[in-house]
Amino acid sequence: MSRSYIFVPLVLFVLVSCLPAKAQYVNVMPYPQKVDLQDKHYFIAKDFTIALSGDYRPRLAAQATRFLRRLDEQTGLFFQQFQVDGSGYKEANLKIRVEKKGEVLPDMKEAYELTIDDGGLHIIADTDIGAIRALETLLQLVEVREGRYAFPYVQIQDAPRFSWRGLMLDVARHFMPLEVIYRNLDAMAALKLNVLHLHLSDDQGFRIATETYPELTELGSDGLFYTKAELQKIINYAAERGIRVVPEIDVPGHATAILVSHPELGSADTTYQIQRYAGIFDPTLDPTNEAVYEFLENLFEEVAAIFPDPYFHIGGDENMGRHWDANEKIQAFMQARGIDTNHELQTYFNIRIEKILADQNKITMGWEEIMTPDMPKSALIHSWRGAWEGVTPKASLYAAARSGYDAILSNGYYLDLMMTAEEHYLMDPAPASVDLDDEARSHILGGEMCMWSELVTEHTIDSRLWPRGAAIAERLWSAEEVNDVDEMYRRLSIVNQYLERLHLKHVSEPKRILRQLAAGHDPKPLETLLEVVEPMKGYTRNPGGTMYASYSPFTLWADAATADARVARVFNEQVEAFLKGEALHESLKTQLITWEANHDQVVPIIEDSPVLKQISNLSANLSEAAKSGRVALEAIVAQRELPAEWVARARKQLVEARANGGRTELQMLEGVERLLDQVDYRRSAQD
Amino acid sequence: MSRSYIFVPLVLFVLVSCLPAKAQYVNVMPYPQKVDLQDKHYFIAKDFTIALSGDYRPRLAAQATRFLRRLDEQTGLFFQQFQVDGSGYKEANLKIRVEKKGEVLPDMKEAYELTIDDGGLHIIADTDIGAIRALETLLQLVEVREGRYAFPYVQIQDAPRFSWRGLMLDVARHFMPLEVIYRNLDAMAALKLNVLHLHLSDDQGFRIATETYPELTELGSDGLFYTKAELQKIINYAAERGIRVVPEIDVPGHATAILVSHPELGSADTTYQIQRYAGIFDPTLDPTNEAVYEFLENLFEEVAAIFPDPYFHIGGDENMGRHWDANEKIQAFMQARGIDTNHELQTYFNIRIEKILADQNKITMGWEEIMTPDMPKSALIHSWRGAWEGVTPKASLYAAARSGYDAILSNGYYLDLMMTAEEHYLMDPAPASVDLDDEARSHILGGEMCMWSELVTEHTIDSRLWPRGAAIAERLWSAEEVNDVDEMYRRLSIVNQYLERLHLKHVSEPKRILRQLAAGHDPKPLETLLEVVEPMKGYTRNPGGTMYASYSPFTLWADAATADARVARVFNEQVEAFLKGEALHESLKTQLITWEANHDQVVPIIEDSPVLKQISNLSANLSEAAKSGRVALEAIVAQRELPAEWVARARKQLVEARANGGRTELQMLEGVERLLDQVDYRRSAQD
Repeated sequence: MSRSYIFVPLVLFVLVSCLPAKAQYVNVMPYPQKVDLQDKHYFIAKDFTIALSGDYRPRLAAQATRFLRRLDEQTGLFFQQFQVDGSGYKEANLKIRVEKKGEVLPDMKEAYELTIDDGGLHIIADTDIGAIRALETLLQLVEVREGRYAFPYVQIQDAPRFSWRGLMLDVARHFMPLEVIYRNLDAMAALKLNVLHLHLSDDQGFRIATETYPELTELGSDGLFYTKAELQKIINYAAERGIRVVPEIDVPGHATAILVSHPELGSADTTYQIQRYAGIFDPTLDPTNEAVYEFLENLFEEVAAIFPDPYFHIGGDENMGRHWDANEKIQAFMQARGIDTNHELQTYFNIRIEKILADQNKITMGWEEIMTPDMPKSALIHSWRGAWEGVTPKASLYAAARSGYDAILSNGYYLDLMMTAEEHYLMDPAPASVDLDDEARSHILGGEMCMWSELVTEHTIDSRLWPRGAAIAERLWSAEEVNDVDEMYRRLSIVNQYLERLHLKHVSEPKRILRQLAAGHDPKPLETLLEVVEPMKGYTRNPGGTMYASYSPFTLWADAATADARVARVFNEQVEAFLKGEALHESLKTQLITWEANHDQVVPIIEDSPVLKQISNLSANLSEAAKSGRVALEAIVAQRELPAEWVARARKQLVEARANGGRTELQMLEGVERLLDQVDYRRSAQD
Repeated sequence: MSRSYIFVPLVLFVLVSCLPAKAQYVNVMPYPQKVDLQDKHYFIAKDFTIALSGDYRPRLAAQATRFLRRLDEQTGLFFQQFQVDGSGYKEANLKIRVEKKGEVLPDMKEAYELTIDDGGLHIIADTDIGAIRALETLLQLVEVREGRYAFPYVQIQDAPRFSWRGLMLDVARHFMPLEVIYRNLDAMAALKLNVLHLHLSDDQGFRIATETYPELTELGSDGLFYTKAELQKIINYAAERGIRVVPEIDVPGHATAILVSHPELGSADTTYQIQRYAGIFDPTLDPTNEAVYEFLENLFEEVAAIFPDPYFHIGGDENMGRHWDANEKIQAFMQARGIDTNHELQTYFNIRIEKILADQNKITMGWEEIMTPDMPKSALIHSWRGAWEGVTPKASLYAAARSGYDAILSNGYYLDLMMTAEEHYLMDPAPASVDLDDEARSHILGGEMCMWSELVTEHTIDSRLWPRGAAIAERLWSAEEVNDVDEMYRRLSIVNQYLERLHLKHVSEPKRILRQLAAGHDPKPLETLLEVVEPMKGYTRNPGGTMYASYSPFTLWADAATADARVARVFNEQVEAFLKGEALHESLKTQLITWEANHDQVVPIIEDSPVLKQISNLSANLSEAAKSGRVALEAIVAQRELPAEWVARARKQLVEARANGGRTELQMLEGVERLLDQVDYRRSAQD
């Protein structure tokens, strides 16, 4: 081996800067369909004005004013204009023309054209919703040129690839106050998402106050629920941003919170308590009890009236049917009607529910389990199962589409599983390569990212949603061909910072937790460690669902950690690049030395902060692994051999370092392992 | 001069650590009346339980459960008990006994005794409110001993010095959403404050929706207001924490927002717009118009019914009467009734308002201008004017008390003026040294800190309130003799960190603003500069009230800056100590070198972030002044002379460095000046 190494000192871990975009890319996410960029700029001045024409009242006027305030905040220019109206169209810097008011309903019209040139800024859209999407693009285009804020000259034609681009929030397992919903609707709008799906009931809580059954929240919510007026506020706030809101009441399983006040509707002769743990539980509505249908008809009628959206999500997932098996009356019912399996019984239930909703002019949607032969083709199938559940990802999505059901995808978009943005990004609901005829393809409406809240609170949820959610938002809006992972990560870092403008807590809350854990010490050494760990993935952090209860503290080490540890990812990539000959030795060494020295700085913090004892090994493992990496790196550079026994010991330590600490896992071990591989490879090549 | 210098390298700017308290102090704020501390500890374990006895339902049960969750978060112990009730009293680790339910009304009973010894933890209080105060003390007592969380053995007897310890929030000039109120009520409870005064109307907005006059918020609030249900939630949330809520509707001046929908009640024949700037404006209700009294009677009746507190604040301040002078009808009215001055006319108005409120069983309170001979002695006088207004501080407070009015103090407690915690801390409402007889002294009920919101938003308000508000809270709760400023600052740093547990944004929001301003760069150099500046003080930041409008961006440099720059204060103190012979030379030099080098790191950030251009000189000034300080320091240590011309130039630069930059001012110049003084002193001594 005879590579030569040039020792150019590099700063490996620069923060993302507001540098100009790569030549061919603008810094916009999700990426527009067609971008024609020029190397000229339109400078933003204090007298910047906006004027509107067409049918823009009141939504576009309000959102354009909001745009003006956000641009003012971004530039600090103290604009003279403080409220947008239709006057002064010809003289305005930004002219927006819309044809008609858009309906915030399925298939809303979101296309727009944005032109920036000598004539100023122009937005043209069929509906005000398209113009609102254009304003979000525009804000992301702000650059600095010649010491001033500017927009690049550009021509953009844009429209979404999929019409259903959603975020499901589980507000049942941990309740989310209004301001959490608001700021995340702002984030959704920034990323051109258009459906907020609220999972309003589950074993851990029932979150809508109703007049028909006030006892549902009185007994089943710990006092944490939305009033109708509050839901109305959420719906209005969303509609202002061109976002639909779809409610979900999960039945017949996941229904413990309902049964707390209505045990007579359950399948077991017992009483129920609000569930404090996570998992799949037995309490289930009794599908053989007519009172259940009467109850749901009344309940759905009241809930359905709150939400203008035509869709109503009935859940329908994960019912094990154990209470059905144990109930003689239910068994007798099944026998009498020739219902052989629990699955068929649930089908019987679903079909009846579908009819109730159809009578209320609602389209039923449900998790993929509702797709049974008798389910009308008008229902929408929500595909969620995949590798974790032992089935082929997207199998139900394609089966549904081929059978003539509309369908959306959530498998691959579960943000609570703590997977990387890359994994989410590369999950395409309907790639061209999949064998689907035009008809079937047209049934795939899009997808929804899911934020189940067993392990998140109102404070930590943002850091689980963002920035990874932006990668999914791009997958659902942009063309299939927009799939360059490096470029996605480049823009994702910019979006990550951009989203903080909206007062999301995805950056600040992890830092706040670290400050508390640091117990008065400088949190820097903790941050160095945190940057290279990720929370345990999938369902492994909370074994059996009982390590944490809903009231447990979620302000611990793992709650500060986020998925997709950028520093570790960059390190691993740089090791690969170094091994291919890139001159990265000095910066890798600097990084490894920092990690090697870190544990000694963490130890005194742990002494003053016993809650951190659980990361003691994790921290030691980082330093040990970094030391191995540093020694291997130096040997590679010096073209010096290392004894096989040393490498074996180092590998053994790496294996031990894979154990979790504080419910998180080190993510930079792969890079160290590559360095050890290289040491072994050199030795065997010389043997 | 022959001092000798020992060069012990010290880290000058350590973060506050959770170190044991000074021998004689516990880390509690406000400081309890009587503390008997032992050097033994009670360790907290996973099976920690609480039991209650006496009349504790439901408030104390809820608050004790909240205490348990907070302690769980602080220790990460995952307590087995998750909800507190009255069972298991004998076996519980923490036993709480109360005699009766306290009333959240003036003169509420807040005393408590807290004992921690071999027998466990005991709280004894007359009312549940006293026990709730004790729980806050207890949480602040948590320490780390032998690697475990523990409470010190201690005996505390505590009760407030003043019964009225308030926070006035101006929700009119910038509206504050519910979550802002909630988290600040949590902070108030932690600091044993007991009155939230809501300034609900002003020229810039009317913030209560009423059924009688819905047009007040429809036209006068920009859609930002509280519904009755929301105010009820605030009142309940406060009452749960033993905090009263007092409403203020400011009349007859500060009434523009009312006049937007009711111009017929104004003193000028005109129409009105919501005021977007800050200042004292002319629009005023017409005291000669009977319709005004009818309107206020109806309005107050509806507002008064929402708030259970017996007090109702009518404002009554800062009415210049220009519209009265200009109105012939009003002039004729005055002449007919022998009313000679505008002040007398306002008195006429106030007396009538007082009667309206008395009929509604409310006690009138108002800013000190309402204290006129005819005002009944039942009214409460709110003393606010002082040096900024050209009058003697507390003059109206003592005048009121001596005349037999109850009175509270706010002069000296205006947090929006950006004064230091020390200044607020040393403002005692009724020091023993003041000549007041027992009767007069008994009329001084306490005080209220005021947070006027011309220049704060829902996001920045926390960093203006805290931690300085804790110093005022201590002044109002603790004994007059608890007035050691250094000790206050020691505990204030701990409280500053403690308050972040409550999800206040006083630490995180300034950092968020810096990250945005840094435009992708590492914000560290900006932070180094920010740490030694404070926003312009008093009313100087916003000259004429027109530099900022209510819709201006408050996410700029000055909004990230906070009052009472700790790093600068410590530097100035250390210079003094060094000049008295303490071995601080090396650490001072390190600090000065950091500042000297900082500007070169700030420059490239400003280039990418034009909004920061306004701090270019400020940053250069810090580095220049630090260089002067470093040269002077080295000369002093080397016992070397510096030319008089050099010192003169350095002093000139210091004068220039006092100019503001980005609406902030450097606070470490004093230390540098002392070093220059010393250089001059040495030269003149040798001459």
